Amino acid sequence: MNESEIEKILAAHASGEVSTEQATETLKNLSYEDIGYARVDHARAERQGFPEVIFGQGKTREQIVGIFEKLLARSPNVLITRTSVEVYGEIRNVFTESEWHESANLIRVFRDKTELGTGEIAIVTAGTSDIPVAEEAALVAETMGNRVNRIWDAGVAGIHRILAEREILQTSRVVIVVAGMEGALPSVVGGLVRVPVIAVPTSIGYGASFSGLAALLGMLNSCASNVTVVNIDNGFGAGFVASLINRQQQNE
Amino acid sequence: MNESEIEKILAAHASGEVSTEQATETLKNLSYEDIGYARVDHARAERQGFPEVIFGQGKTREQIVGIFEKLLARSPNVLITRTSVEVYGEIRNVFTESEWHESANLIRVFRDKTELGTGEIAIVTAGTSDIPVAEEAALVAETMGNRVNRIWDAGVAGIHRILAEREILQTSRVVIVVAGMEGALPSVVGGLVRVPVIAVPTSIGYGASFSGLAALLGMLNSCASNVTVVNIDNGFGAGFVASLINRQQQNE
Amino acid sequence: MNESEIEKILAAHASGEVSTEQATETLKNLSYEDIGYARVDHARAERQGFPEVIFGQGKTREQIVGIFEKLLARSPNVLITRTSVEVYGEIRNVFTESEWHESANLIRVFRDKTELGTGEIAIVTAGTSDIPVAEEAALVAETMGNRVNRIWDAGVAGIHRILAEREILQTSRVVIVVAGMEGALPSVVGGLVRVPVIAVPTSIGYGASFSGLAALLGMLNSCASNVTVVNIDNGFGAGFVASLINRQQQNE
Amino acid sequence: MNESEIEKILAAHASGEVSTEQATETLKNLSYEDIGYARVDHARAERQGFPEVIFGQGKTREQIVGIFEKLLARSPNVLITRTSVEVYGEIRNVFTESEWHESANLIRVFRDKTELGTGEIAIVTAGTSDIPVAEEAALVAETMGNRVNRIWDAGVAGIHRILAEREILQTSRVVIVVAGMEGALPSVVGGLVRVPVIAVPTSIGYGASFSGLAALLGMLNSCASNVTVVNIDNGFGAGFVASLINRQQQNE
Amino acid sequence: MNESEIEKILAAHASGEVSTEQATETLKNLSYEDIGYARVDHARAERQGFPEVIFGQGKTREQIVGIFEKLLARSPNVLITRTSVEVYGEIRNVFTESEWHESANLIRVFRDKTELGTGEIAIVTAGTSDIPVAEEAALVAETMGNRVNRIWDAGVAGIHRILAEREILQTSRVVIVVAGMEGALPSVVGGLVRVPVIAVPTSIGYGASFSGLAALLGMLNSCASNVTVVNIDNGFGAGFVASLINRQQQNE
Amino acid sequence: MNESEIEKILAAHASGEVSTEQATETLKNLSYEDIGYARVDHARAERQGFPEVIFGQGKTREQIVGIFEKLLARSPNVLITRTSVEVYGEIRNVFTESEWHESANLIRVFRDKTELGTGEIAIVTAGTSDIPVAEEAALVAETMGNRVNRIWDAGVAGIHRILAEREILQTSRVVIVVAGMEGALPSVVGGLVRVPVIAVPTSIGYGASFSGLAALLGMLNSCASNVTVVNIDNGFGAGFVASLINRQQQNE
Amino acid sequence: MNESEIEKILAAHASGEVSTEQATETLKNLSYEDIGYARVDHARAERQGFPEVIFGQGKTREQIVGIFEKLLARSPNVLITRTSVEVYGEIRNVFTESEWHESANLIRVFRDKTELGTGEIAIVTAGTSDIPVAEEAALVAETMGNRVNRIWDAGVAGIHRILAEREILQTSRVVIVVAGMEGALPSVVGGLVRVPVIAVPTSIGYGASFSGLAALLGMLNSCASNVTVVNIDNGFGAGFVASLINRQQQNE
Amino acid sequence: MNESEIEKILAAHASGEVSTEQATETLKNLSYEDIGYARVDHARAERQGFPEVIFGQGKTREQIVGIFEKLLARSPNVLITRTSVEVYGEIRNVFTESEWHESANLIRVFRDKTELGTGEIAIVTAGTSDIPVAEEAALVAETMGNRVNRIWDAGVAGIHRILAEREILQTSRVVIVVAGMEGALPSVVGGLVRVPVIAVPTSIGYGASFSGLAALLGMLNSCASNVTVVNIDNGFGAGFVASLINRQQQNE
Repeated sequence: MNESEIEKILAAHASGEVSTEQATETLKNLSYEDIGYARVDHARAERQGFPEVIFGQGKTREQIVGIFEKLLARSPNVLITRTSVEVYGEIRNVFTESEWHESANLIRVFRDKTELGTGEIAIVTAGTSDIPVAEEAALVAETMGNRVNRIWDAGVAGIHRILAEREILQTSRVVIVVAGMEGALPSVVGGLVRVPVIAVPTSIGYGASFSGLAALLGMLNSCASNVTVVNIDNGFGAGFVASLINRQQQNE
Repeated sequence: MNESEIEKILAAHASGEVSTEQATETLKNLSYEDIGYARVDHARAERQGFPEVIFGQGKTREQIVGIFEKLLARSPNVLITRTSVEVYGEIRNVFTESEWHESANLIRVFRDKTELGTGEIAIVTAGTSDIPVAEEAALVAETMGNRVNRIWDAGVAGIHRILAEREILQTSRVVIVVAGMEGALPSVVGGLVRVPVIAVPTSIGYGASFSGLAALLGMLNSCASNVTVVNIDNGFGAGFVASLINRQQQNE
Repeated sequence: MNESEIEKILAAHASGEVSTEQATETLKNLSYEDIGYARVDHARAERQGFPEVIFGQGKTREQIVGIFEKLLARSPNVLITRTSVEVYGEIRNVFTESEWHESANLIRVFRDKTELGTGEIAIVTAGTSDIPVAEEAALVAETMGNRVNRIWDAGVAGIHRILAEREILQTSRVVIVVAGMEGALPSVVGGLVRVPVIAVPTSIGYGASFSGLAALLGMLNSCASNVTVVNIDNGFGAGFVASLINRQQQNE
Repeated sequence: MNESEIEKILAAHASGEVSTEQATETLKNLSYEDIGYARVDHARAERQGFPEVIFGQGKTREQIVGIFEKLLARSPNVLITRTSVEVYGEIRNVFTESEWHESANLIRVFRDKTELGTGEIAIVTAGTSDIPVAEEAALVAETMGNRVNRIWDAGVAGIHRILAEREILQTSRVVIVVAGMEGALPSVVGGLVRVPVIAVPTSIGYGASFSGLAALLGMLNSCASNVTVVNIDNGFGAGFVASLINRQQQNE
Repeated sequence: MNESEIEKILAAHASGEVSTEQATETLKNLSYEDIGYARVDHARAERQGFPEVIFGQGKTREQIVGIFEKLLARSPNVLITRTSVEVYGEIRNVFTESEWHESANLIRVFRDKTELGTGEIAIVTAGTSDIPVAEEAALVAETMGNRVNRIWDAGVAGIHRILAEREILQTSRVVIVVAGMEGALPSVVGGLVRVPVIAVPTSIGYGASFSGLAALLGMLNSCASNVTVVNIDNGFGAGFVASLINRQQQNE
Repeated sequence: MNESEIEKILAAHASGEVSTEQATETLKNLSYEDIGYARVDHARAERQGFPEVIFGQGKTREQIVGIFEKLLARSPNVLITRTSVEVYGEIRNVFTESEWHESANLIRVFRDKTELGTGEIAIVTAGTSDIPVAEEAALVAETMGNRVNRIWDAGVAGIHRILAEREILQTSRVVIVVAGMEGALPSVVGGLVRVPVIAVPTSIGYGASFSGLAALLGMLNSCASNVTVVNIDNGFGAGFVASLINRQQQNE
Repeated sequence: MNESEIEKILAAHASGEVSTEQATETLKNLSYEDIGYARVDHARAERQGFPEVIFGQGKTREQIVGIFEKLLARSPNVLITRTSVEVYGEIRNVFTESEWHESANLIRVFRDKTELGTGEIAIVTAGTSDIPVAEEAALVAETMGNRVNRIWDAGVAGIHRILAEREILQTSRVVIVVAGMEGALPSVVGGLVRVPVIAVPTSIGYGASFSGLAALLGMLNSCASNVTVVNIDNGFGAGFVASLINRQQQNE
Repeated sequence: MNESEIEKILAAHASGEVSTEQATETLKNLSYEDIGYARVDHARAERQGFPEVIFGQGKTREQIVGIFEKLLARSPNVLITRTSVEVYGEIRNVFTESEWHESANLIRVFRDKTELGTGEIAIVTAGTSDIPVAEEAALVAETMGNRVNRIWDAGVAGIHRILAEREILQTSRVVIVVAGMEGALPSVVGGLVRVPVIAVPTSIGYGASFSGLAALLGMLNSCASNVTVVNIDNGFGAGFVASLINRQQQNE
């Protein structure tokens, strides 16, 4: 949305042509900033409950920094996922308080730490190799105002390991399960709890895992009724949706 | 769980060997009824927030009726999905107040109509052919105590059709989007609301839709951050998870 | 192996040209009966530990009966899998004591009931719909001289159902696990026992199960080290291999 | 077509054996230059409306330069796609006025700038990462004599971004839409305009995008009737076809 | 778009609150009729250049008739594709002049026969079995106001068959090529003409054609630069896009 | 090729404008008969060594009969593959000496029985269910003038069955191997002979054979260097190519 | 299982609250050590017959060393698979007697060399390139107390090579067959022996082997009844299961 | 075959126990040399018509050299395919007259240049990038005693390029066609000649070519009856089979 458009709406509002309600609605739905290679979506926090997140993969360093600067000017919290320590080198020059999270290849500005969730989010991994994806989910959820419990390496071949965590699972508001290989853990966890389970297949595995396809198909076919699935390795998406579920009535 | 096992737990409890808390927990997690071809899971309502649902496909008529009778004895509401009017003929003999829902190939006993949801659930379809899957989701959600708004035939090739429903979408607690073909609608809806969107790919389409694969992959790769996905044509799963999201704090 | 070939070997043996050992070996490896559309492999019982089994699917009724007659003449036990009650109608005319097993679409002649196994075989299904495949495995194993324990409908979404059978699993010599959908059960069972687990994916499931592909991939990627896999719906193969494992030293 | 063949045709024409029309037709359809590793197709400009374009990938540097020299001698405009700045180093030695386009990995000789299109071509991308493919399309279309409007980063998760460009879309003669991930944008754009939409899936995405397969399938299944599809990342093809559509009556 | 919305726009226009231009635009983009199971898109003719086409597959007979009545009231020409002679029985009751086209399983109302195309459309099939898909394309193009030339059974294994039609191909404004099996014909035709070629893969073939996948992949990878592709068996889409290309400047 | 075209060539030849050689060549390459739904390729016997074969699947009864009549008028031998006894009912009315081959679903007119092959062709199947595909190959080869040896049911799990046929394999000029399931037999046969082996995957198998895909991939990856592959179930193609190999120098 | 849990069980046992049997069972099933990024499963040797094996791929060097130290303290034999000589450099610092096996990329601590098998295990490869996977299987089996016979490069294209080893195959208790490309060898070997055959597909091959998919599908569809399959390149799993089969009655 | 086995056969022959014919046959079928990591198949020249070819990919340098030395001692001609100039450095040390062919990544010893073919082999490529695969085929065929005609870059998008070579194609004994992308060229060539056509799909292409899958499927579905297919990029196999076809009666 360029300046002239905003002006037109405001003028129409000032003249009484459009109501306050209508003007608000229009601005809420249309507003973005065009910087050539990207249309930075400033309305997203209002419209979606969290500012636009920068997905680092496939963007040049210049593009990431450019979008970061625009977001930093208006949002207290900013996330850059799928990025690298090299990009962090430049981001830190722009804003020294930005954090580098090696465990999840993620850059974060975390200025507003208000707690928004109504309960807690449990995040479980089947194996040690699934931790980076799970950490991405955990950091996203924490940045969006939630308390998170991490349960790492509790795969089904040693079923007692996940059963031992039954209590923490059964007192969470939502559970994220991160697993590669056969992706069986979400079904087991799903059967233990009465809340939504978000399953994240990972590309961990070898041979006929086909880069996460086996885990993805397994999770989509889960015999537990409370399981939904996100894309392979998409820790970000899982953390995002879990946060939305954990908030009290969001739309109004 | 056979009788003797229950007796043993009760005896141990009576003698003070195990505490009330422990006995409750054991019963809650272990209880099921073995009828040969099936282990009817009576603890599921307690453990998962809704009684076991009978998935009709692949079961004989005798098996469905047998399981139905066991569930009917203990649960006020019972659902049989993916079934037929022929099975309904026998179910009605067992319980005359059971309902047949042609639109979703579903049999329902709906005795407890307590409202449990905190908000409303919107269910959207991209086309007319997607309605049976969406109806399955709607009936499941209603039976689980939710108010549902149906928005049929609002696919993206006429984008004004879904934009016209923006208000109802933006006041829902969770949105289910059912689409075949390219499965693009969840991304558009996801960008309009700040609540979780559950995407249901359908097998509607032809040629390179490959029985829903195109829609499934499209939804898993959604550029909207608030979208999770269930199996192809799995209206039941979507309605189930939406109900869990719409409930106030479920675990305790 | 036609008559003249057998004669030649016998003549060579009689003349001392080949030793008894050599003649035996040759006959053991080469012997079959050519009936035009099939080479009935009479040496298989000697060479493989069980007579040739007739796989009914894709063969005409005449072909099945023809092969059956040849096998019946030499083997006490005969199996026809993937067949129908119509074929049974004709088989019963040939041999009245043959049995029809509706549960597994299998015809059996069971004259030699010698017990050959050293332990017991447990067969587990995840759901009710998986029973026909599991019954095929059970009948094959029983016909090959084994004691079998059936555990039906113990899928992972109600994990207590399989945990309740831990004792029977842990005293078996080999376990067969039959599951469709996400195929997660073999991993859980594999983690509970110290014997080989043979996983049988079934084509039960819908949508993205892709006729058993999801279960197949899940089982191949099992995180339990003691799991091997057979073809989708291949109850016969699982029962056959389990029997070989359960025999004392077979080769000599 | 070697020299002797041309001579033969000309001789036949001179002697009146073949008519002028026939000779022209023959030369138009048969003419090419064989340089061993390639048959340079000089008739293509006549036959297809634009000279042969050099597809750099999979060719050695020597091969590219060799073909380039042959084309440069006869065509005012020459394009090398999928190439590198290293190849440009050598091409510039051959012809100093050649241009290097970093944004699309493309070398261009642009001597004839005649405008040939009847309208304008709009090119839209869903995200920032799709720009290189879109730039390839844009440069091809411009070199073929068209005016192009670029609309970058207007994906469906912020539907107002593409709606804001409705006017420019609705006054174009043809629209190219470049998108990765779920590939939903062509359906939305297709529903907004009454001209052909050429959809270009890109390999941008992760996990279950399977290198562009998800976007490709999505576009092929588009519910908008005016969408056709080219290969993954094939910006060149999209620009080429858009140019043909934008020309007045081309065949005669 | 319900009545009240239209009223609001008209009132705002009448009062001078919105300009004629704005009101027109709003009505053009938003107008549709909600009949419960479908939102009939009356604005489509204005927005897309042709009224909504009814895709018969997956809809009940009642739904098809219901939508047909709504469209018939406002559009001179109506098409129902992928339908059956049974549906035609009911459609004829509604409107006796509707036509049944057995060759393409298509029902047509053809009241406005204005010619809109600037040139001619050639439609080619590789084999005899591809004719039904090609006829669907031909009927759609004719109904949209174009002259069509049909060239049936000219596959590449007898290359002289297509070469013999070179003249008619080279004087067309756009060419549709319909082929199953290896889908090679579009590449050959593409190399002969200087206009856009729309390739339609068909599900004709056996074995490793995988229901049209082989032809689809072949066409997407065409070495001819002027080829774009539509979905498997999608004759409708090809005829639709060819019509748009053949019109003079459509957007304004 | 319509009449006028033939006339033109003949006239040009008569006037000395084109040489006899040129006229012959033109006629040989261009000649076909256009009957609307098909272009019957009469030049094929000359150009390819055998008349056009009618592939029955996907053609109407009328179309098959129409093409048959045209071919019968000029070719001594005619083949219709993938057809049915119903079609044969009509074909017999046209030509009473036509034969119906139930074993291969094939109709044949076999008037010219000249032997053309230089050696013999061996055809092997892995199992009984593969016989129909193998019979198609055998009948095609015999009709094209070859002597054929049939070896049925000699799969690798009883390796002695194929080893027993080593002599006949090693004196053939070419071997066709027909196998479903894992498709291993061509590799074993390939290693036994010094002539080309043509592998035909069949759709016989279950579960993960995926309608012949497993056998197809197995054969393409054969470790024997003398194996080439045709489409799944394509007995016709295998018989055709084997005939070409078995002929003395065919091109001249 | 953390310390306090063990204490609780012991206290309950001491007080007579739980029996010795119950306490033993609980400890056997629940015991593991949580070191943050991993739950080291010390009960596995008891529960599964061999200590946990460290799968090196996807774990950091620190994680591998950390888990190794925990296992070394309690298990005489330790295996690290899919690792590198760099990791070995650090492992040797921890325990100097650890061995590096270049042929299989495997680190081993081999302190307890008790023979546990009842017979011998034969391991066969189809080609030279399959040796690393087969060596992994051999080392695992040897470390688990078995005698192993290696038969390398005996693929089916030279069938005499495997026939020459018939004697050693027929006196083994279990056979492992490792093959890439078409994966035909297990079927041939399966037909020669009366013991279980474990097939290991490898990613060796090119083109349409699709990284082992062809071999995997081939093996799953084996016509030999005694073949089961593990994941692509999973030598470890094959060696593990073969060891379990070769042990006398393992469960009790 | 180890020494003792040869001795036994010779002794048996000397004593008259087996005939000369039998001894020859046995030696011909069984003979190989076991060098640990490989069984060098010296009987292959006798059994298959050409000595074993060393497939370099996936073997260590030491293994290649070791096998090379064994073959060099007995065969006049030796081929190493899929190798590198580094390996050539060592091979040249072993035998200085060995040749390095950069164009096909192939090492050759070519001492016996006897011509064995009865006709000529034509090898065609669709594009410049397909040349390396075609060169492999050409070198294999030449080394096996054939005359080869190379026709490079004659793809179907400029159909006149292949038509111009009709004469050379129509006088060949067998034609090899090498093509990537859509793989259409074999169908066109197949329709022009009356000899076998061997199609080689290449991995050349991008996007939806999926590393040669599109070309492979296209070729398998060829509408030309004389086409068989080898693995993707398998120039070696195509050259090998073409040589066998081009020989006079090979088996006897």
